[in-house]
Parts: sequence; C-alpha cells; structure tokens
Amino acid sequence: MPLVVQKFGGTSVADPERMRTVADHVARCRRRGDDVALVVSAMGKETDELLHMAARISDNPSGREMDMLITAGERKAVALVCMALEEMGVPARSFTGSQAGFKTDTNHRNAKILEITPFRVSETLEAGVVPVVAGSQGVSTENDVTFLGRGGSDTTAVALAHALGAELCELYTDVSGVFTADPRVVPSATKMASISFDEMLEMTATGCPKPVMRSVEVAHNHRVPLHVRSAFTWEPGTLVIEEPEESEMERPIIRAVTHDQSESKITVTDVPDKPGVSATLFRSLADRGVNVDMIVQNVSEQGQTDISFTVPTEHLAAAVEVLEGGVLTSLGASDIRTDETIGKVSVVGAGMKSNPGVAATMFETLASNGINIEMISTSAIRISCVVESERTEEAVQHLHTAFGLDG
Amino acid sequence: MPLVVQKFGGTSVADPERMRTVADHVARCRRRGDDVALVVSAMGKETDELLHMAARISDNPSGREMDMLITAGERKAVALVCMALEEMGVPARSFTGSQAGFKTDTNHRNAKILEITPFRVSETLEAGVVPVVAGSQGVSTENDVTFLGRGGSDTTAVALAHALGAELCELYTDVSGVFTADPRVVPSATKMASISFDEMLEMTATGCPKPVMRSVEVAHNHRVPLHVRSAFTWEPGTLVIEEPEESEMERPIIRAVTHDQSESKITVTDVPDKPGVSATLFRSLADRGVNVDMIVQNVSEQGQTDISFTVPTEHLAAAVEVLEGGVLTSLGASDIRTDETIGKVSVVGAGMKSNPGVAATMFETLASNGINIEMISTSAIRISCVVESERTEEAVQHLHTAFGLDG
Repeated sequence: MPLVVQKFGGTSVADPERMRTVADHVARCRRRGDDVALVVSAMGKETDELLHMAARISDNPSGREMDMLITAGERKAVALVCMALEEMGVPARSFTGSQAGFKTDTNHRNAKILEITPFRVSETLEAGVVPVVAGSQGVSTENDVTFLGRGGSDTTAVALAHALGAELCELYTDVSGVFTADPRVVPSATKMASISFDEMLEMTATGCPKPVMRSVEVAHNHRVPLHVRSAFTWEPGTLVIEEPEESEMERPIIRAVTHDQSESKITVTDVPDKPGVSATLFRSLADRGVNVDMIVQNVSEQGQTDISFTVPTEHLAAAVEVLEGGVLTSLGASDIRTDETIGKVSVVGAGMKSNPGVAATMFETLASNGINIEMISTSAIRISCVVESERTEEAVQHLHTAFGLDG
Repeated sequence: MPLVVQKFGGTSVADPERMRTVADHVARCRRRGDDVALVVSAMGKETDELLHMAARISDNPSGREMDMLITAGERKAVALVCMALEEMGVPARSFTGSQAGFKTDTNHRNAKILEITPFRVSETLEAGVVPVVAGSQGVSTENDVTFLGRGGSDTTAVALAHALGAELCELYTDVSGVFTADPRVVPSATKMASISFDEMLEMTATGCPKPVMRSVEVAHNHRVPLHVRSAFTWEPGTLVIEEPEESEMERPIIRAVTHDQSESKITVTDVPDKPGVSATLFRSLADRGVNVDMIVQNVSEQGQTDISFTVPTEHLAAAVEVLEGGVLTSLGASDIRTDETIGKVSVVGAGMKSNPGVAATMFETLASNGINIEMISTSAIRISCVVESERTEEAVQHLHTAFGLDG
C-alpha cells in the first residue's frame, strides 16, 4: 500500500474537536487504501504559552531546559491524537522524537537532524497501526532532548517521509495551499495546483510563510513530493514537486509575487575599495549570528564605495553593535545608516530563465507607479527589489497584475 | 558533603513565583553545605487538567498514551525549576524519568520501578550541579514512557535517595508534617517530631493521606530516612525513621488516630462453611482488580457463615458485578448486602505491643459514646473499627482525647 506521511500543525489539533476531525480524516485515508504515518505539532498556542511561562522565570534560560520544556507540548498532542484515533477504531501509537529515531546535533532550540533510524515507526506501520510522531524534536548526540525550532514539524514530516520511503508528504495547515501572492494583499491571488521545488524555495526565501523553508530544502534534497493543504476545508492544495505537470507552454513565466516587510537596510558609507573588506564585514556579522540577505555594492568612486545590505529587523541592533564596536574603524569606513522602513517584493518563476524581459517588466511596472527601487538582487528564477515599506503591498498588487496572475 | 534528595509536590511548584521560592530554598541548603538532588511533580492542577483533556476525547484511552500525555506535566515542571535555579545562580540540569535511569515494568498508569541506574544524576552531582528529576515516571522494558501513578513522585524521590545513597529524603508538601489526627477533624491534633516506619505505614494504610503509602514502603525496605515537611512555612516537619529518638518511657502508647471514609462494606450471607470458599471469593475479586481491605468472617452456624469485607467505594460496583455475575451461585451463598455509609477509625502506636489494654480502651471509648462497632481488625501496632459513616469524626475526636493525644 502507498505510504503517506501527514503532518498536522498546531491549529489543526488545537482542541479535542479538531483532533477528532483529524482522526476522522486519517480513518478515511486508510479506508481508501493508504498507509498513513502522522507528525503532529503542539496544540494551538501551546508553544507560545510555554515560552511565556519560561519568560516569567528567566530572561535567558538555558537551551537545554527550553527544549525539555517546549517538547512537552508535542508529547501531549501525539498522545491525545492517538486517543482520538483509537476512539474512531484506528489503532495508533505515539512516538517522541527520540523514540522515532531522530538523532540531532546539540544545538538546542534549533537542532539539526543528523540521522533518522525510525525502526519503531516502521514496525508500527507493518503491524497495521498508525504511528503518530511528535514534531520538531529529537535526541542529541549527548542524549539530551532537542527542539528543531519553530515550524520544525514540517521538517520532521519531510525527513520522516524520506526515511520511510513514503510516496508523499502532506503538510496540513490553516491555509489551503500556496498562492500566487498573499491573498490578504492581493484578493485576486489564486492557489497554484503545483509548483517546482526551486520555485517554492525562492518563494519561502522571499516571504511566503508556509511551508517553512527548511522543510522545502529537505524535500528538495531528497526529492520528497509535498502536498501543502488545508486541515479545515480538506480540499486539494498545492503539490510541490520536481517538475510540475503543466507543459512549459501553459505555464506562466512568473508563478508568484512574494513580499517581506521583516527586514531592515544598513548602508556602510565610504568603505575603501580594496580586497578583503567585504569578507571582514560579513564574517564579523556572521560570527554574531546576524543573517544577511541582500547585498549591494556601489560602483567605486575615488577608491571608496558604499555597501548596503539587509538583515532581519530583529537582528538590526546586534548588527549595529558589531559594526560600531570596531568593524567600521578597522575597515576605515566613515559611517553607517540604517533604514527600518523598507519592504522587499519579489517575482518568482522558472519561466524567466528563457524570457529575458522579466526584469524590465518588473522595473517598468514599479516605475510607472512611482515606486522607487532602492536595491535589486536576482537569482536564475527570482528578481527582488527593495522598496519603501509603505508601498510594498501596492507593488505586489501591480506586479501580480502585470505578470498576468490575477485570477 | 551530605546528600539530600528533596521532593517538591504540585502545589510547591504551582507557578513561577512558587518555583522561585523553591529555588531560593535549594540555594540556601547548598550554602549550608548540603548536596541537593530534586524530584519535582507536575505544576499544581496540571495532571488533573491533562486527565480532563483526555476524558474529552476518550472514555477509555490506552494506558500507553495516557502515560505519554501525563508525563509531559513533570517534564515542563523540571525544565522551569531548572530555569529558576539558574536564575538564582545555582547550576541545574533536568532529567526525565528515563534519563535518570528509572526502568519500570509495562504496567501503564501505575508502573512499578524495576531498577534505577542514575549514572547521569550522579555525574551531575559530582560536577556540582543540581539534578532535577521528573517525578513519577520511567521507561518500560519495552522502551515506552511509563507513569508511576498519582503521588508517584514521593516514590521516585525515595527510590532515588536509596540509589544515590542519600542521607535523607525530604518530602516537601502542603502540610507541615504528620499529625496525631487530621487537624480538620481534631483541632487539638499535634504535629509529631518523629515516627517509626512501621507506625507511618499503618497510618498511611488507614487514612493518613501524606506521604503516600508506597513511598513509605520503599523507604522502609531500604531504610531511607524521610522528612515530611512544608514547602510553604519551611518549618521542621516529621521525621520518619527506624527508631524515633524519644525514649520508650516518653513515647505515648498510641501515636495517632486515623480515619478513612472512602470504603464501603459488602456482606455475603449464608456462605457454606467449607474449605476454599474464601479463596474463590477473594481471588475472583482480585482478578477484577478490586482491593479488599478488612475481612471478617462470622462464627459458623449450621454449616453456614457470613463474610463481610470492605472495598474502596470506587470499586464497589465492580465488586458487586463480580459477585452477582456467578461467584455467589458457585459458592452457594444466598445474597449480598452493601453499605456505603461506613467509616473506619484506627489507633496506631508501637507502644500497644507492650500495653494490652489498648483494645479495651478503644472499645470502651466508642461504647460510652454510643458509637456502634460493625467490624474490627487488628495488627501488632494498630486497631481499626468500622463505625457508622456519620459518626466517624466524632469517634476520632473521642479516641484522640482518650489516648491522651490532645495537644
């Protein structure tokens, strides 16, 4: 029988009523002939509540204890989902990350999976029982409980699907699929029937919140087909696969317009234009854990240049501290300017590889609407522009129309 | 340095404020020169809440899943207590039952400890770090998570104290020690400075709610001194030890008067008085999991007798079902009568071994107050009488006075 790994997020299992709905769905899938393994997140807002509880005790709790605390949430959820399944006549067995064979590194709060040996899960499936695995957790090489980070259940599901040789990994969530733009911003945005891994990766990297990027990376690396779909309407969602089925002719050049308003821009002015400057600058930021996204370096004038880059706004203070704490001086740069009022708008589509006019269309669309472009970055299948924060949504709407995506 | 295992119950760690108080106490103990290992229960009413959540999903959830669910409570508590300790500058490390080396049988919901290999806990102590162990949990011989039952944290603490060779096991709770009677019933009841294991066992077996009997049994078997005390007032409580320090002369003959109103009486009438009858009767009840407490068999008349026994009222329906489901017929007995309106009052004291008048005093006290005795059972250091439920507390008060226990 084909094996499907189904992941249910926090809102999908927020209360006993929702859990019964999930159990009913699983029972139907089995009656239709699928073998099913589940991955379940903590219920509703539980992870937030646990974080809040910890914050009432400590401003800086140890990662090890945070992981011990937070992973309790998924344990409760898997046990309760098993009870709901059994009530519906579906035999089920819960597994912690450790019991399911998820071995991780010791990087608490955000551990990486090193190896999966899911023999207990396989035995359970072979016995005709539904395994229900706690999402986003594992056991470290030092035998401590680890948490894979927020949204880590998607990664658990994809990695488990790969380890079990599943045909498909279904990510059930509170949205009904992947859209051509955020439907809150673009009412005419449409759900895509399918999208390639490459496109999905670019979308998640530029603001599409679900599925989380890390799970798409794992799916891409191991060629695990994903189905992003709703646990509320149960309608078909979006397939994320190697090669979408539509012929190249039928596919739009641009698949989606994404945006992200969570970044800020830093410009370092009057940097001497000599080898090693960028290396020093970005190494010092990386050492502090600051994620740098776009980087633009101006043309050099009189042996000096400006370097602009974007960082998550939550990293801005740390970045400024690093720069003003000696890096500027050692580079011989004069000053930094920061701007929190930026937005990034991106167009994504594999079709642009064979259609050179995409960039021009994007720039013209923004220009004709009086939206100034502050930074540009491109990949083979994506073009991103930084614009004024308050004009970002407007930019998304115009681009969605310009590239013929309005439903 | 002397090692003390300290167990904190649910009310002692009910919220962040209480956890900070516990952490402060642990810091003080360490400053005074003790090594400390902690055992912690789930916060406040958490276990009840988890049971309630499960009940909303299933009337009869599997024991395995119940244990996965409930043990999440202690995991949260140990992580948060560690954070509170670290905030106070006390290095701390949490351990699940499994990580602390508690191997149990597979009897879910009420697992028994088979073996403890607490090497991670020992290493932690040697490193000068406070180990904080999740109470009432372990891992079964089938590598599943197990729960030791309600009140199991006391047992975890005593077993851990034995395994680590601790000098003392302190059970911190919401009462300030062991009293000569329930202070709600007898206002003049006094806290005992110390009591022997044997007396404590008889008291817990006859209605004294704390500490739980199972932990006293383990302490008794392994000669682990207990200190039952308050996590709210921090005053010295009651030592449970091999031989209390007071000289025999100073010790009262009776140490305490206990009572229990949670049992019901069943009388099987006109049972043929022949070998094997009692065996059949009580084996069939045991097979159904019914705990039988007191048993009284009347003198045989014309080859027939009556057998009366008490069971927890919560087991009454099951007991009746067993008896009426064939046992009565197979015994040739005529009928059963049940009575839920009974109470058991007991006097406990090692001194009664050398003072034969205790039973007479007890019976006279009840008789002179017009309280009828329905059943009697005795051990070497205890006498229990079943009386009318509504006169139980009155009986306790009179006996407390009669044996000179009023403070």
